[in-house]
Amino acid sequence: MIYLDYSATTPISYDVLDSYNKASREFMGNPNSIHSLGVKSKVLLNSATRQICDLLNIQENELIYTSGATEANNMAIKGVAFSYANKGKHIIVSKLEHPSIYKICEYLESLGYEISYVNNDREGLVDFEDLRNKIREDTILVSICAVNSEVGIRQPLKTLKQIIKKENPNTIFHSDITQAIGKVAVNLYDVDMASMSGHKIFGPKGIGFLYKKDNVKMIPLIHGSGKFGDLRGGTPPLPLIVALSKAIRIALTDLEKREEHVALLNEKICKDLEKYGDIVLNKTKYSIPHILNISLLNIKPETFIHAMEEDEVYISTNTACSSGDLSSSVMAIYEDKKRATSTIRISLSYVTTNEEVSKFLNLFKTEYKNLTGFLVNEK
Amino acid sequence: MIYLDYSATTPISYDVLDSYNKASREFMGNPNSIHSLGVKSKVLLNSATRQICDLLNIQENELIYTSGATEANNMAIKGVAFSYANKGKHIIVSKLEHPSIYKICEYLESLGYEISYVNNDREGLVDFEDLRNKIREDTILVSICAVNSEVGIRQPLKTLKQIIKKENPNTIFHSDITQAIGKVAVNLYDVDMASMSGHKIFGPKGIGFLYKKDNVKMIPLIHGSGKFGDLRGGTPPLPLIVALSKAIRIALTDLEKREEHVALLNEKICKDLEKYGDIVLNKTKYSIPHILNISLLNIKPETFIHAMEEDEVYISTNTACSSGDLSSSVMAIYEDKKRATSTIRISLSYVTTNEEVSKFLNLFKTEYKNLTGFLVNEK
Repeated sequence: MIYLDYSATTPISYDVLDSYNKASREFMGNPNSIHSLGVKSKVLLNSATRQICDLLNIQENELIYTSGATEANNMAIKGVAFSYANKGKHIIVSKLEHPSIYKICEYLESLGYEISYVNNDREGLVDFEDLRNKIREDTILVSICAVNSEVGIRQPLKTLKQIIKKENPNTIFHSDITQAIGKVAVNLYDVDMASMSGHKIFGPKGIGFLYKKDNVKMIPLIHGSGKFGDLRGGTPPLPLIVALSKAIRIALTDLEKREEHVALLNEKICKDLEKYGDIVLNKTKYSIPHILNISLLNIKPETFIHAMEEDEVYISTNTACSSGDLSSSVMAIYEDKKRATSTIRISLSYVTTNEEVSKFLNLFKTEYKNLTGFLVNEK
Repeated sequence: MIYLDYSATTPISYDVLDSYNKASREFMGNPNSIHSLGVKSKVLLNSATRQICDLLNIQENELIYTSGATEANNMAIKGVAFSYANKGKHIIVSKLEHPSIYKICEYLESLGYEISYVNNDREGLVDFEDLRNKIREDTILVSICAVNSEVGIRQPLKTLKQIIKKENPNTIFHSDITQAIGKVAVNLYDVDMASMSGHKIFGPKGIGFLYKKDNVKMIPLIHGSGKFGDLRGGTPPLPLIVALSKAIRIALTDLEKREEHVALLNEKICKDLEKYGDIVLNKTKYSIPHILNISLLNIKPETFIHAMEEDEVYISTNTACSSGDLSSSVMAIYEDKKRATSTIRISLSYVTTNEEVSKFLNLFKTEYKNLTGFLVNEK
C-alpha cells in the first residue's frame, strides 16, 4: 500500500497507541475525583499538559482540549464573536480556509455578523493591502489558516499579526494550524488563538486543542462544570490527552530535517508530472512540500483516484471535509473553474519513502496511460 | 482495590479497548475520503452506528456522536433554544440535574431565556402538578435527567412525556440518560432527545451521543462539513465510535439480572449502615440501587474518603463534576443543609462482588470507628 493522503488523516503511531493503552489501563480515575485514583489521573493529566505546553512554548492556562480542530474552530470564532459583540460584529477570513470556518461564518452571518473575505494573490498569499483595508474599528477577529489544506499555501503568521495589530490592536488573530503543525515550524507567539487536531499528526482521532492567549475573552462553546476548566465542560478524556501529548512530541522531532526530506520527494514528483502535457501543478512558492495539488485536465479525478486505488495507492480529490467537486482553494488562487474541478491532492509525510514515491510515479504513469491513451515521454 | 465510584467514571472494559485498538490499527482511512480506505472506514462506521441503533431501537438519522454527555447536553439545550427562539424562550429543568445543565441554563438566562425549576417531592420525584403548572405556550423545552447522579433518583420518563405533551404538544422533552443507560432500562421512545457518555458504561472517554428525534429541529453546536452529518462537524473518531458501540452492547446485556444483583448489594450495605446512629441514608423509593448516597453527620466526608482510600477503597463525596461542598440534589430533596454538606456517594456496578461489599463494610466500620470513636453495635 502507498498512502499519500496524510492531509486527510494519518494512521495512529503505535507509540501513541501504546500511550493510549497504558493510560487507559493504569489510570482509571476521573481527574475530577478527590480520591487518590482521581488525583493520580490528575497528575498524569497535568504532566501531559505541561509537556504539550513546553513543546509549544505556551502557558498551561492557554491550552484548552477539544474533540478536534472543528470544535476548536467553533470555540474560537463563536467564542470571540459572542464575547466581543459589544465591540463589533465584523470578522475577516481568507479564501483558503477549511470548510468548517465557512460554515461557522455562515451561521454568524445569520445572527447579524458581517464577514469579509480577504483576497489573495496568484501565489495564494493573503493580499496584505486588502487585509489592511478591510480591518475596521469593529473588526473583532481575523481568522487565517497557517497552511491551507488543499494547496498547502503557507501564510506568514508573524507578518499577518503585525499588519492586524497595527491596523487595530484590539482585533484578535486566530489561525487554524491543523495542516501546519508537525510539518513546518509554527510559533504560537504569532497568533492569539490556534486550532489543531491530533489525527493529522499520527495521533488519536477525537482530540485536539485550542490555544488561546490569556487576555482573549471567550464565551464557552460547551458549558459545564468548572473543576477542569471554565472554558470547556466535560470529563477530560485522559487517555486521548496523554496520546495527543505523545503525538505532538513525536511530530515536533527533527522538524527541519523531515521537511527537507519531504521537499526532495515533492520535487521528484513535480519533475515527473511536469512532463504530462495535460496535468497542471497547482503549486506556488508558498506551497509546503507536504501537500501537492495537481489538476488532471483530461480525466475525471474520481476516476483516476479509483484506478490508483486498484494498485493500493491512496490519494484524494480535494479535502476529505469539503463537499462538492470544486476545490475552493484552487479556485481562489487560479480563478479557473476547469482547473478547480479537476484537482487531485497528493499529501506526503516524513514517513513517506523515496521508494514509495518511485512506485507511485510508475503506477501513476501506467494508470494515466490506461485512462487517456496518452504516452508520456520516457526519461 | 475496591472501587465504588462507578458513577464518576468506569475503567474501560478490555473487550472495548480491544475494539478500539483493532479499529485504530486496521481502519486508518478518513470515513469522509472517497478512496477505498475511506470507504472501508465508512462501512465500519455505519455498521457500528447500526448496532447502536438496533440496541436502542432508534433510527440511524436520530443518532449524533459527540465528545460526551456534556457536549450532548449543550447541543440539545442550546440547539433547541436557538432553533425555537421564535416560538418561545421558556425552558424547564428539574432540581436534580447534572451541573452542566445548570451552567447551560445560566448562559441562556444571560441571553434572555427564562428558566423554571420544577419542584420535586421528598422522595425526589418530579412534582407532576408543578410541572403541569409551569408548562406554558412559550415553553420550548423540558430537560429532566432519567437518573440523578448524586442520589440516583429515577424519574418516570414515560409519565413525564405524557404530562409535557398533554400540556403543550410542541414542547420538546430532553433527558440526560448518562446515569441510567447500562443500569436500568431506558426507552428512548419516551423522550425527544437524550444525552449519554461512553465512559460511564466501561466505554472510552471522549465519546458519547445525542439521540434526537427526526422532527426536532436544532441549530448545530459545532458547525462543520456536511459529509458526516450536518448537525455535528468534524472527522468522526472511528475507533472511539466502534469502542462505544461495543460498550453499549455489553452494557445492555442481562440488564435485569444485573440490576437484581446490584439491588442485593445495595440492601446489604444499607442494612449495615442503618446501624450507625449518625449516618443517614439519602435513599428514597426512586433511588436506583447503583447509587447509594449517605450523610455522615459527625465526620467531614473528605476526611472519611481519604481514610478509606488508605485501604484502597474509593468512594466520592457528591459528583466528580460538581463544585463546592454541597450536594444540590440532597438539598433539593431533603432541604437540610447539614445533610447536604456531609454526603458520601457509594456507586456500585454489576461487576461489584459480594466479597467486595463485605470487605468494604468491614473497612468502613474500622475507619469510622477510628475517626469517631463510635462503636457500632455488633450484629
